[in-house]
Amino acid sequence: MHYLVTGGAGFIGSNVVNTLLQQGHLVTVYDNFSTGMPEFLADAQQASGFRLVEGDTLDLTSLTHEMQGVDFVFHFAANADVRHGTEQTRRDLEQNTIATFNVLEAMRENGVKRIAFSSTGSIYGEPEMIPTPENAPFPVQTSLYGASKLAGEGLISAYCEGFGFQGYIFRFVSILGERYTHGHVLDFYRQLQTNPHELHLLGDGHQRKSYLYIQDCIAAIQTVIEKGQDKVNIYNLGTDEACEIKDSAHWIAEHLGLTPKLTFGGGTRGWIGDSPFILLDCQKVRALGWTPKLTIKEAIVCTVDYLRANEWVLERR
Amino acid sequence: MHYLVTGGAGFIGSNVVNTLLQQGHLVTVYDNFSTGMPEFLADAQQASGFRLVEGDTLDLTSLTHEMQGVDFVFHFAANADVRHGTEQTRRDLEQNTIATFNVLEAMRENGVKRIAFSSTGSIYGEPEMIPTPENAPFPVQTSLYGASKLAGEGLISAYCEGFGFQGYIFRFVSILGERYTHGHVLDFYRQLQTNPHELHLLGDGHQRKSYLYIQDCIAAIQTVIEKGQDKVNIYNLGTDEACEIKDSAHWIAEHLGLTPKLTFGGGTRGWIGDSPFILLDCQKVRALGWTPKLTIKEAIVCTVDYLRANEWVLERR
Repeated sequence: MHYLVTGGAGFIGSNVVNTLLQQGHLVTVYDNFSTGMPEFLADAQQASGFRLVEGDTLDLTSLTHEMQGVDFVFHFAANADVRHGTEQTRRDLEQNTIATFNVLEAMRENGVKRIAFSSTGSIYGEPEMIPTPENAPFPVQTSLYGASKLAGEGLISAYCEGFGFQGYIFRFVSILGERYTHGHVLDFYRQLQTNPHELHLLGDGHQRKSYLYIQDCIAAIQTVIEKGQDKVNIYNLGTDEACEIKDSAHWIAEHLGLTPKLTFGGGTRGWIGDSPFILLDCQKVRALGWTPKLTIKEAIVCTVDYLRANEWVLERR
Repeated sequence: MHYLVTGGAGFIGSNVVNTLLQQGHLVTVYDNFSTGMPEFLADAQQASGFRLVEGDTLDLTSLTHEMQGVDFVFHFAANADVRHGTEQTRRDLEQNTIATFNVLEAMRENGVKRIAFSSTGSIYGEPEMIPTPENAPFPVQTSLYGASKLAGEGLISAYCEGFGFQGYIFRFVSILGERYTHGHVLDFYRQLQTNPHELHLLGDGHQRKSYLYIQDCIAAIQTVIEKGQDKVNIYNLGTDEACEIKDSAHWIAEHLGLTPKLTFGGGTRGWIGDSPFILLDCQKVRALGWTPKLTIKEAIVCTVDYLRANEWVLERR
C-alpha cells in the first residue's frame, strides 16, 4: 500500500510513518515543516519506501500532484494549538477546515478513496454526558479549534456519502509520549527548567483531562482501520481515566525530583474555550479488542523522560 | 435598532427585511444578487430606514465597512441549493462556511455582537431519532450543504464563547410561501407548465419532508430572538407534520385543476445526500409560545398561488 501522510513530520504523523514503514508500506510524507521537525523523520529516511515532499495543504495544486498513485491518506496536518484560537481567528479555518477540503479534493481528483483524520475530543465542547460517547447529544462548540475540526469531520463524512469515500475519524484526547512537542507537560517542564522552585498552572488546577500514549494511539488507529467497515467510522480514542492538572504537575515534579510551590491562574478553565472536564467514552474502540498499555501517569512520566533526553525540542518551540 | 441582513434580497431575507422595516427599524441589506432579486425589495425601497448595499460576503473589506453602526446581523446569504453539492464542491465551503467566518470577523471588527443564522435540518443527516430534537445524537453529515452549515454553526458558537457574541441559530425545514424561488414546488409547477399531463418525481415519491410557511418562520425567529437568553440559542423551526413528496405532487396538481400521470426516478432518496425522512421536533420553540398558522398543505397551496401570480420568478431561475 502507498500511504500519504499530511503532517507526517509532526508528533503523531511521524510515529505513524515509522509504523507504516516497519510494516513494509510505501509512505509519502507531505509536510510544510511549520511545526513538523526534520529530526522526526531521521529513521524514516533510511527506509527505501520513504518519500518526503515539502508542501503546504493550502497548496491544492501541489497536493493534487503528490496524491498520484496513493491508496490511503492519513490527514494529520493541522493547527493543533487549541488555546490561541481567539488571537488568530483565521488560522483554524485555513489550516484545519480549508486544508481538509483541499486534501479531499486532491483525493477525488486522483481517485483516492480512504482517509483517516485526526479530530479531537474538543468537538464535544462542554459535554452534558461524561464519559462522552461518539453519539453524545449534538454538542455546542466552544473553541475555534473544535469548530474547525468539526467542519473537517463534516466535510469528510459528506465526501464519503457523495463520492464513495471511506473515512476513519479519530476523536483524540491529548496524546503524550515520544516526539511530544506541545502541551502542558512541555510547558511545566520548561517552567521547572527556568525555576525549579515554582510552577504556575492555568485555571485552578482542578481541570480534569484525559491523555493517551502515542503507541497506544497508533495501535488503536490501526485496529479501527483494520476492523471498521462503515462508510464513516467515528471513534473516540483515550484512556478510561482522567486526571487533574494539579495531579499531573505533582507527577512531573516528583519524577524530576523537585518540590515546587504551585501557583494558580484561577477559574475553572485554563483559557477561553477550555473544557474543564474531558473524559471520552472509549467502549466503541475497546469493543474491537484494543486496550491501552500505559496509564495516564505512566504516559506523563514517559513524556518527561523523552523531553529530558531531547531538550533540543524545547529550544525549537 | 440597526439591522444588517446578508442575503436580504433573497426569499427569507427580504421577508424579514419587510417585517423589520414595518417595526420601524433601520435595515441595511447586503446582497450580491446572485440569487436575490431586486423586485423583492421594491416595498422596502419605499421605507426611509432602508439602505441597500450590493456586496459579496466573500469580500471581507466591504462587509467590514458596511457593518459600521450595526446592532444586529441576520446572516441569510448562502448557497441554498442542497442538491448539487457534489457537482460544485467548492461552492458550499465558500458561500456558507467561509462567508459565515467573514460575517463574524466583520462583526468582531465593529463590536457587533448579535447574530441570527439560517442553518438547516439537513445537518441531522439521516437521523436516528425522528422527530429530531436539537440535542439529537451527534449526527453524521451526508451532504456538503449540511456540512457547510454545520461548520457555520460551529463558528458562530465559538465566537459566542470566545468573543461574548450572542447567537440565534435556526435549523429550518424547507420554507414555503411568498417569494419562494427554488425547491420542489417550483420544479413541479414548471414541469406542469411545460406538460400538464405528466409530472416526474425524483426518488420513489415516498420521501417524507417537512415544510414551514414563511410568515410562520418569521414569527418563530422573532419569538426566539425576543425570548432566547442563552449565549447560543439553537432552535428547530418546522411544523409537527411531514408529507410525502407524492402527496405534495397531488395537492399541487389538484390546486391547478390538473391530473397528471406521475413518473418516478426510483430509489428512496431524491439525490445523493438527500434524507428520505425529515421531521424536526419543534417542542423547544413551541415552549416559547409560538405555533405555526398554516399546515403544510396550506403552505404548498399558498406557494402555488404565489408562483401563478408571479410567473416572472420562474423565468429568472
